[in-house]
Amino acid sequence: MSLVKLGVIGIGNIGSSHVQMLNSGQINGAVLTAVCSSNESRIAWVKSHVKSDVKIFTDEETFFNESGCDAILIATPHYSHPELAKKAFAKGKHVLIEKPAGVYTKNVLEMNAAAKACGKVFGIMYNQRANPLYQKIRDIIQSGQLGDLKRTNWITTDAYRSQSYYDSSKWRATWKGEGGGVLLNQALHQLDIWQWTTGVMPKRIRSVCSIGKYHDIEVEDDVTAFVEYENGATGVFIASTGEAPGTNRYEIVGDHGKIVVENEQLIFYQLIQSEREFNSSYTGGFGQPEYKKINIPIKSENSNHGIIVQNWIDAIVKGSPLLSPGEDGVKALEISNAIYLSSWLNETVELPVDVDQYYEKLQQKINSSTFEKKHVTNSTLDVTGTH
Amino acid sequence: MSLVKLGVIGIGNIGSSHVQMLNSGQINGAVLTAVCSSNESRIAWVKSHVKSDVKIFTDEETFFNESGCDAILIATPHYSHPELAKKAFAKGKHVLIEKPAGVYTKNVLEMNAAAKACGKVFGIMYNQRANPLYQKIRDIIQSGQLGDLKRTNWITTDAYRSQSYYDSSKWRATWKGEGGGVLLNQALHQLDIWQWTTGVMPKRIRSVCSIGKYHDIEVEDDVTAFVEYENGATGVFIASTGEAPGTNRYEIVGDHGKIVVENEQLIFYQLIQSEREFNSSYTGGFGQPEYKKINIPIKSENSNHGIIVQNWIDAIVKGSPLLSPGEDGVKALEISNAIYLSSWLNETVELPVDVDQYYEKLQQKINSSTFEKKHVTNSTLDVTGTH
Repeated sequence: MSLVKLGVIGIGNIGSSHVQMLNSGQINGAVLTAVCSSNESRIAWVKSHVKSDVKIFTDEETFFNESGCDAILIATPHYSHPELAKKAFAKGKHVLIEKPAGVYTKNVLEMNAAAKACGKVFGIMYNQRANPLYQKIRDIIQSGQLGDLKRTNWITTDAYRSQSYYDSSKWRATWKGEGGGVLLNQALHQLDIWQWTTGVMPKRIRSVCSIGKYHDIEVEDDVTAFVEYENGATGVFIASTGEAPGTNRYEIVGDHGKIVVENEQLIFYQLIQSEREFNSSYTGGFGQPEYKKINIPIKSENSNHGIIVQNWIDAIVKGSPLLSPGEDGVKALEISNAIYLSSWLNETVELPVDVDQYYEKLQQKINSSTFEKKHVTNSTLDVTGTH
Repeated sequence: MSLVKLGVIGIGNIGSSHVQMLNSGQINGAVLTAVCSSNESRIAWVKSHVKSDVKIFTDEETFFNESGCDAILIATPHYSHPELAKKAFAKGKHVLIEKPAGVYTKNVLEMNAAAKACGKVFGIMYNQRANPLYQKIRDIIQSGQLGDLKRTNWITTDAYRSQSYYDSSKWRATWKGEGGGVLLNQALHQLDIWQWTTGVMPKRIRSVCSIGKYHDIEVEDDVTAFVEYENGATGVFIASTGEAPGTNRYEIVGDHGKIVVENEQLIFYQLIQSEREFNSSYTGGFGQPEYKKINIPIKSENSNHGIIVQNWIDAIVKGSPLLSPGEDGVKALEISNAIYLSSWLNETVELPVDVDQYYEKLQQKINSSTFEKKHVTNSTLDVTGTH
């Protein structure tokens, strides 16, 4: 097969980073042939950063109709992902979307249906799935070594953001512009890894999202969510952009022990005997099951965008399996939608959330918004070191 | 002043331990002169373990009227603490009660009023307050080094208990016998230390208490509670007796950094500049405040019952300040009552809880109970290594 002709639409913070990666030939089997952005200053940036034979489009319809691409990488603002992906599928293109899959599950499910109908290769940039650290955790759990799930706990407060980050664009951290805050932006990878490593989605969620607690924004920058799983296990997810230095600690407890990751160190506390068996057979009153403390020397690798793109191209070229199928994008979004809905309704919500109810509540937020950011700087930020 | 004549009432797991400590003369300024228990086998144990001049009583009225003690250490089951303390105050005795202060705040507040009216020295066995680890945390926070409180998180799941522990007594882990489970027993110290180190009580609590999740008991053995403080800070408290190996990790975030204690290691991440100041002055988009990571080499000392008893005796003899005033006992109990009430009502509750409402709900639990433990062994357990 000849090289996959690849187009990128959306040249903001992360899109620019992808263009540079593709333009420098880091992906085997693909070549950057087109770029699309409606932003003049970003087009100027593209012209000075890509090879001269890369076609540049400023209008998305022309891009889809005339670029001649086989595959499209969508890195536009969140809301547009499902709509653009559906357009690409309608043109028979393979698609890789940046996260989140969208902002509400209603149209993300439509996008997933379009992908299925089209049959093209559909991926999502959950690049943390390429992190060996999380792959190892998933292996331990999915292989049954941890035993039945009892409790999960993820404190992910290390994506600190100052007001200047939020002030870089008018649309950032607004209901209309992004449809959410820390959950949809900074902590979405963790929401995905949470369900991907354990292999289970929460069944019920109760949450408190604090709006503009630490910043001049109209969405949440601080979240605590309590979840319950089908088997009775419980979990807590805490995210914030207002703490420094933040924490990134993920703990998963099962019947055969406990996994803890913090400061990029993975420890598996493995019981010699199932806790449930010990509990019913031990007669000594105080006393607890024996365990081995296993330090697993795996290096965390955060910036794996290239691995996800290569994996997607390989799936197109060789038919190899996707690490991060596009259809999976709905899962973390489902969790984030449920967390928002629980906070808005001030009650426990069941998953899956009612797609129409969520859509309507979000529209109310957008339509009733009177929020105006005090200082907008309109700057493109360097994403080096972010995920 | 001559030696304080000390009597101990209640010779179960922990009372036996106190009797041995006192009998061996480890406390300066006090002498064990009397012991009271209505349990024949425990009386037999006392006779073979204390000096011959220690008076032994099997009836509490006679003990209070005729023992001639100056001071009473109360180590009976939870429910009886307020009633016995009030009797002791009425006789003009100094009192040290084992934790919890009681089971519901209604009569604990009466006990506190009686203590105040009597003017005698009233302490509670919050022996973790004598732990240098928690004293250091309190110092950092109370001295203002951590700045305004943002978030607390305590996962305290390392007090593992097997079914045989619960089977050791019929009354254990029943509403009637103990009035609660992991919260009132294993995690009460942490509830106290949580409010004592931060210096603030939660204002609102939302919780889920799971009843008999891991054991054949009628009370909770697994709890997750979300709290909000007056200043907008949030917190999570997780306790369980059904996980192995458990976690004991306490994280406190403030405007000037973060304190983390886990595996008995205390780390203070201290910001060079307040986060709030950094947030408003920084213009670089991504980027975060600088911090110093300070490892504080303090050894955790868990078994400090002797320090609390000595401190109480010193307060009696020398008028020195109490580390753990009896009146403080209501605070952790207030939090635990609120956690139960939130779970029972399935709603957020405000603190302080309505003392009558809580009392009535608890009576309903007791009166409607049909629970019978399947295997009761009636054994006294060695508390070595527990707190």
